[in-house]
Amino acid sequence: MTYKITEMATHDIRFPTSLELDGSDAMNPDPDYSAAYVVLKTDDGFEGHGFAFTIGRGNDIQTKAITALEPYVLGRDVEDLGALYKEMVYDSQLRWLGPEKGVMHMAISAVVNALWDLKAKRAGKPLWLLLAEMTPEQIVDLIDFRYLSDALTPEQALEILKNQDGTKQERIKTLKAQGYPAYTTSPGWLGYDDDKLRRLCKEALDQGFQQIKLKVGADLQDDIRRFATAREVCGPDFPIAIDANQRWDVDSAISWVNALRQFTPHWVEEPTSPDDVLGHAAIAEGIRPIPVATGEHVQNRIVFKQLLQAGAISYLQLDSARVGGVNENIAILLLAARFGIPVCPHAGGVGLCELVQHLSMFDYVAVSGTMDGRVIEYVDHLHEHFVDPVVIDNGRYMAPAAPGFSAEMRPESIAAHLYPNGEVWRNG
Amino acid sequence: MTYKITEMATHDIRFPTSLELDGSDAMNPDPDYSAAYVVLKTDDGFEGHGFAFTIGRGNDIQTKAITALEPYVLGRDVEDLGALYKEMVYDSQLRWLGPEKGVMHMAISAVVNALWDLKAKRAGKPLWLLLAEMTPEQIVDLIDFRYLSDALTPEQALEILKNQDGTKQERIKTLKAQGYPAYTTSPGWLGYDDDKLRRLCKEALDQGFQQIKLKVGADLQDDIRRFATAREVCGPDFPIAIDANQRWDVDSAISWVNALRQFTPHWVEEPTSPDDVLGHAAIAEGIRPIPVATGEHVQNRIVFKQLLQAGAISYLQLDSARVGGVNENIAILLLAARFGIPVCPHAGGVGLCELVQHLSMFDYVAVSGTMDGRVIEYVDHLHEHFVDPVVIDNGRYMAPAAPGFSAEMRPESIAAHLYPNGEVWRNG
Repeated sequence: MTYKITEMATHDIRFPTSLELDGSDAMNPDPDYSAAYVVLKTDDGFEGHGFAFTIGRGNDIQTKAITALEPYVLGRDVEDLGALYKEMVYDSQLRWLGPEKGVMHMAISAVVNALWDLKAKRAGKPLWLLLAEMTPEQIVDLIDFRYLSDALTPEQALEILKNQDGTKQERIKTLKAQGYPAYTTSPGWLGYDDDKLRRLCKEALDQGFQQIKLKVGADLQDDIRRFATAREVCGPDFPIAIDANQRWDVDSAISWVNALRQFTPHWVEEPTSPDDVLGHAAIAEGIRPIPVATGEHVQNRIVFKQLLQAGAISYLQLDSARVGGVNENIAILLLAARFGIPVCPHAGGVGLCELVQHLSMFDYVAVSGTMDGRVIEYVDHLHEHFVDPVVIDNGRYMAPAAPGFSAEMRPESIAAHLYPNGEVWRNG
Repeated sequence: MTYKITEMATHDIRFPTSLELDGSDAMNPDPDYSAAYVVLKTDDGFEGHGFAFTIGRGNDIQTKAITALEPYVLGRDVEDLGALYKEMVYDSQLRWLGPEKGVMHMAISAVVNALWDLKAKRAGKPLWLLLAEMTPEQIVDLIDFRYLSDALTPEQALEILKNQDGTKQERIKTLKAQGYPAYTTSPGWLGYDDDKLRRLCKEALDQGFQQIKLKVGADLQDDIRRFATAREVCGPDFPIAIDANQRWDVDSAISWVNALRQFTPHWVEEPTSPDDVLGHAAIAEGIRPIPVATGEHVQNRIVFKQLLQAGAISYLQLDSARVGGVNENIAILLLAARFGIPVCPHAGGVGLCELVQHLSMFDYVAVSGTMDGRVIEYVDHLHEHFVDPVVIDNGRYMAPAAPGFSAEMRPESIAAHLYPNGEVWRNG
């Protein structure tokens, strides 16, 4: 059944989250969670939705970058998403703006993810299941192995996938029955006072989450007090991760984390610049055995490759909408599997939980074959704006059943939050 | 004398260079050299000009990103360029689009460089001299040391600068008399046939250049033939560098370069992804003693720091308009000095020669104190569009004497090349 993409529309959508200090951390005091949003429409009535996530200013630049990719999709019948992904990445003129990083790469992510949303809707399946049911060969064809071959070849990727291929149906059943474990960051934002922290920790336990995370890095004495409070509420053995959002240099990361060692952090997230592979390796060495985690700002598979090669991270936190979309994230899942490192994705913001659950579930079924030591981040903000929002039950993401990538925002939410002329912004 | 910046104008300027195959290489077959251009005007009649360099498509995105920085300069009397640079880098919302990489960081570069152009014009001095005459303490205050302290502290930077401080006047005299050595890439573009290569090699020798560079990486047999041709024209001892423009994976870089070993490459430039610090280190090990060079696509000081820490490069090729402008480039010059690695800047495109000469001359006077083993890239394209174009004499960049950063394009060139409505584009 052939079709053509006949329209590509983009929207600058922003939520005034800074008013509530939701999402406040040591580097991002006042984010307005935003989506540079793209809708692809076909001549037979389907739509694919996707977006890049930003935190406010600059969402207009991000939206404009997405429109630059219109020639790659308009008028086309997109079946081979491996080929199209590479076409966009290797547009030699646009590539100069990265390459494969920042605004232009996030724009590719939005379009690639919208194409996958479209493909899954046409197939009548949730994306995680569509991907999981592809053959190992089809999955390998989605990947750009350039710059990876010193760590992962197509043959090695195929071997990883084939190892899981025979037992996929069991895991699909398990997922549908039990979902995938989640952890919550909601208690830990820096802008919250201690009473709110205490109350939210208790709620997290009551809701069945298997881990929480605290933002740290602005003031050590505050961090000690807040970590002690959380530890007191959650008990001595409950996993509590900490997240510095890139605040530190190498030496200060080591001393700061060691000053929190008594509270046994489950991991230390983004201790320094996401670009600093060797810095992360030095920090990992300096705070051993406390594990290092990073990924939400890691620009592409090449930096992830090095973080793994250098032994710099114990948890890999991919993001659904920063690297080049589903295709590059599959490469990253395979890299992690090759190095035996669990993937615990970044989520939150707006819509990132909706997207990333599909990637972790695909990972479980087809790549790693396990949920051991793995959790998906969960933040309970802004889900009401989505047509097919995540469902959390007893601290677990339930497997999405609706066709698509869960990326579609409600039309009334889009209209109300258009920047600067939607009613939310016009009125205040 | 106080003043205010009263206007910030941006222009999308593009040159149809793809028509001539100027600038063609293994990854960029048909660039249209472009500038996302910014003009700052003050209430007392001065102008500061700056730009981000791109190669065509996407120059509109880059231009839009520059306009997002308008609130940082409009209405302000900008004296402290260290503070303003950091303000822009740490805009927490815009930072999400990088951080410190790609479109948003190049936008900061354009604005920072325009502010330096303005400052130098107001001081009545060429930028290299303005910088060279600052005290070591003033120079250190321009730098953001975040994420650098494991390799370069403010104290170490100060020591490097103080070591050169007493003898600066001698080197200023030398520069004014003799200029700074250049090499030319003009013979080596992949789109040129062998006769043109031969003719341009001979011209390069006749013009007194001290090195040439060949583009490689598309076809090994072509590279062998072209390198042999260039070696034959230039003689056995003349430095000939090669440049793969990121074409290879690690293993193919090693085998390809080793297949060219007989022609004794002076350096191998951009053998692989600019993001791959560990890959560059592995290549350096695999082709020893052939030196590795990179930098034109290196996104920021943090990646340069790691390239130096890992021993991955023997030449550091900073670019004047990709990292965060003059301020971040001073940090990079100091990092290179700390590791004893010569800086041989990337130039070419449109206006990059005009800008980067100031940085190398400042390096010579105030940081490294030497020109030994150092050359600035030169490409003889598009200089006629600048008010104060580079002057090359017997293969050397002559020290600019006019006030400013040599960044200002002629008004009639700007008008003619505006995209898409300037006459060059309107007429097809």
